[in-house]
Amino acid sequence: MSRNVRQTDEHTVRHGGPRVVSPELVPEPLTAAGFAPFGDVIEASGPFVLINDGSTKRFHDLVRIDNFGEGGRAAISIFTVKKQLFPFPVRMLERHPLGSQAFIPRLSNRFLIVVAPPMEHIQSSDLRAFWSDGRQGVNYRAGVWHHPVLATVDDDEFLVIDRVGPGKNCDEIAFSEGERRVLLWA
Amino acid sequence: MSRNVRQTDEHTVRHGGPRVVSPELVPEPLTAAGFAPFGDVIEASGPFVLINDGSTKRFHDLVRIDNFGEGGRAAISIFTVKKQLFPFPVRMLERHPLGSQAFIPRLSNRFLIVVAPPMEHIQSSDLRAFWSDGRQGVNYRAGVWHHPVLATVDDDEFLVIDRVGPGKNCDEIAFSEGERRVLLWA
Repeated sequence: MSRNVRQTDEHTVRHGGPRVVSPELVPEPLTAAGFAPFGDVIEASGPFVLINDGSTKRFHDLVRIDNFGEGGRAAISIFTVKKQLFPFPVRMLERHPLGSQAFIPRLSNRFLIVVAPPMEHIQSSDLRAFWSDGRQGVNYRAGVWHHPVLATVDDDEFLVIDRVGPGKNCDEIAFSEGERRVLLWA
Repeated sequence: MSRNVRQTDEHTVRHGGPRVVSPELVPEPLTAAGFAPFGDVIEASGPFVLINDGSTKRFHDLVRIDNFGEGGRAAISIFTVKKQLFPFPVRMLERHPLGSQAFIPRLSNRFLIVVAPPMEHIQSSDLRAFWSDGRQGVNYRAGVWHHPVLATVDDDEFLVIDRVGPGKNCDEIAFSEGERRVLLWA
């Protein structure tokens, strides 16, 4: 076994081929620092201002909303989502080059996030996965590759703030069967 | 009794004085039609589009976000809120003339809404009250008078989408003790 692994490594280095990665994609806990290359975490933590005679803490202006482009504007929508079965093969990702997209859970259910950096060419070895504790939302920055929302319970509900307006604002990338990572939920 | 009521009505008509209203303010169930003079109800109902290979219903673009004025933009914040005690005397309202403000419950708790139309001069007889079932959010249009968020449980949590930017964007009106309505929660 160890010899095979070493051969594979040597082969990779010698030919400059794709990085050797585990087919398994294990989600990390979602933190602001870990998610920083992809966008913002939306949660009631950190500094706040006390308003309304002290009855309310305002955690202020938590994300950067991008709605670039001629006639683009922010819209509020609700997604209701079927759960996925895990392990889950990651067949594709999408990106919205013209605007950010925020997903905020409304029913406190944990959910999963799969992302890749906002590069023109990505490989499945570039994937990162995170799990939200159910109170945390995320805001994908414009151009960040991400999988459509991955619920772990049926009829889960998310608030979505993203861009509406003219222009082509959705690209997709598909992974061939051999490239596919398998997202665990453990 | 009926004679007294009639006399009161006659008096009101004769002198063109303030409308006679009960000091009690009884909240109505929140509906899109009832709330239309004040803004939008944010809920997963009505038409949707099926996306993400049929796993997701998108209830699309549910509100009008206003962020008027030089340099205004939409921001996402979280409010964590102490509960109020009821009956609750409505001492004041506020309005944001430059932008809309959306409140979306995150923990499925019912909450209360007190509003008045976007007029320059209002009286406490102009107040309307609504209760959200805990899944429904609201979006106050720019200039609509409203009471700061009224939670019915402690540490309730709301997502807020409103305007940040330069300019004076908060007016307040105070009601004298004699004018105050008392909000019931029943």
